[in-house]
Amino acid sequence: MGEFDYIAWLRSRTAGHPRVPLGPGDDCAVVSTTPGVPWLVTTDMLMEGSHFVLADAGPRRVGRKAMAVNLSDIAAMGGRPVAAVVSVALPRADTRQLAEELYQGMRIVADAFGTAIVGGDTNTWDGALVIAVTLFGEPGPQGPIRRSGALTGDWLMVTGPLGGSLLGNHLDFTPRVHEALALQEHARLHAMIDISDGLAADVNHLCEESRCGATLRAESIPVSDAARQMNDGRSPLEHALADGEDFELAVAVAPDDGERLLRTQPVSGITLFRVGEFVKSPGMTLIEDGRTRTLPPTGYVHRFG
Amino acid sequence: MGEFDYIAWLRSRTAGHPRVPLGPGDDCAVVSTTPGVPWLVTTDMLMEGSHFVLADAGPRRVGRKAMAVNLSDIAAMGGRPVAAVVSVALPRADTRQLAEELYQGMRIVADAFGTAIVGGDTNTWDGALVIAVTLFGEPGPQGPIRRSGALTGDWLMVTGPLGGSLLGNHLDFTPRVHEALALQEHARLHAMIDISDGLAADVNHLCEESRCGATLRAESIPVSDAARQMNDGRSPLEHALADGEDFELAVAVAPDDGERLLRTQPVSGITLFRVGEFVKSPGMTLIEDGRTRTLPPTGYVHRFG
Repeated sequence: MGEFDYIAWLRSRTAGHPRVPLGPGDDCAVVSTTPGVPWLVTTDMLMEGSHFVLADAGPRRVGRKAMAVNLSDIAAMGGRPVAAVVSVALPRADTRQLAEELYQGMRIVADAFGTAIVGGDTNTWDGALVIAVTLFGEPGPQGPIRRSGALTGDWLMVTGPLGGSLLGNHLDFTPRVHEALALQEHARLHAMIDISDGLAADVNHLCEESRCGATLRAESIPVSDAARQMNDGRSPLEHALADGEDFELAVAVAPDDGERLLRTQPVSGITLFRVGEFVKSPGMTLIEDGRTRTLPPTGYVHRFG
Repeated sequence: MGEFDYIAWLRSRTAGHPRVPLGPGDDCAVVSTTPGVPWLVTTDMLMEGSHFVLADAGPRRVGRKAMAVNLSDIAAMGGRPVAAVVSVALPRADTRQLAEELYQGMRIVADAFGTAIVGGDTNTWDGALVIAVTLFGEPGPQGPIRRSGALTGDWLMVTGPLGGSLLGNHLDFTPRVHEALALQEHARLHAMIDISDGLAADVNHLCEESRCGATLRAESIPVSDAARQMNDGRSPLEHALADGEDFELAVAVAPDDGERLLRTQPVSGITLFRVGEFVKSPGMTLIEDGRTRTLPPTGYVHRFG
């Protein structure tokens, strides 16, 4: 059983709550303050050995990643990050230095995005390093941009080249917070997600939540240099489709908006690519060399047992 | 180096932020939404082997505790809990059943306090169980009640008997959310904290933040039945002073308010005890059998290395 089945189980058990416009299952939840102001909330936990190798990455890059993956979830909702809290379980060796370097790494990227680190819980134990960051933000000008708003005929666009993040991008990526806000000045964003599980898996999330399907064109998928360098028997395209932790955005926009975005490239720092479109019938299709095949949602999945 | 030194280090590095009225160092941080509405935020992480023994407690009680310790932090600020997010690192054995029972335990106490579980991050790994809960709430009628407001001459009161929580209370305690709200109808609360590190350690936090000292009277400290049953060579009073995880509240009130609270006991479900008073000179003193001695802040401390 994968993580997604558990989320489905959670959602089935989560009753409506007057202060919770959006519960589990999107990139962020939405919680209302007393006067009805919506807040974005997201949490991600990183564990040594699963999400990073501490000896290879070093504590600053690990801290940076722990903050950045949460910033990416705020970006995926089109929001502005405001504040974070951090809980850590630290192994007993060199604890003080580890704690400080983790914090310095978190601060680098938190400062870059105007995010205050407002509190936390610091523990030591005999286990491996665990960091959980929870981030709060406010919606951008178009409100919380959900996974569920893609319409038949919408273009599917991504904000940069994909694949091979294991070679370094999974630690050093820039969360697309500024770009997601800038995009909202140029187009109505129908649905959005950050590519954390892999392009195929995350587009599948958009399709399932939007109750539609998608057709992707192989030759239009931007393949990163890293994907070409993986050299492990799988093709660069397979890496672009299946690798996780690219942390680019996948977005659904109306065709006229998509055409204009593609032509004018109005957001500095990124190049927008059209990789396909949303279609009425469920499921995903890949068109490659004129042939059409079913595209399975084979992204990176946290397996249960 | 203990957790508290690290928090001091963090605070020294935390710049003022216009949206953060209160940063690290209290039971909750305070973050403002756009229209200036303050929100309480707190996070606590529990690790198998440090905060619970999974085989003894069972997953439902562990889940309950993970939520309840955070509810207690909201209580300590006099607030109302609203919503929570949960991150877990699950060991690989019986993962699905463990995840469901943890969630059921969390829901029992979340539901009891009107708190929605709005999202989370579920992971599996080769390590031991780790749960991090982050809770958001709104301030009560007296605003966020901080650790720093105790005045010389204020009474120090607690909401129930203390010590010996290891015998079960550390898992099964009731967070004093309702009681903290009810107290605000009957007295101006100058400062408050939940007793998680131990009475002496937590009163020391109040003193340090309020820049004052405290005198405690041994015969007035309510000692729990569990503290009397510990039978490990330390006295019941030592357990009441030093054991952590009682999760009662320690509160500073003006003497006339304290006198009235003591006489009328206006809050159902708890008995209020006067255990001492705040004094001008720093440090803590214990009066026992007519003798006065220095009381060290020897509560439960998460040690660094």
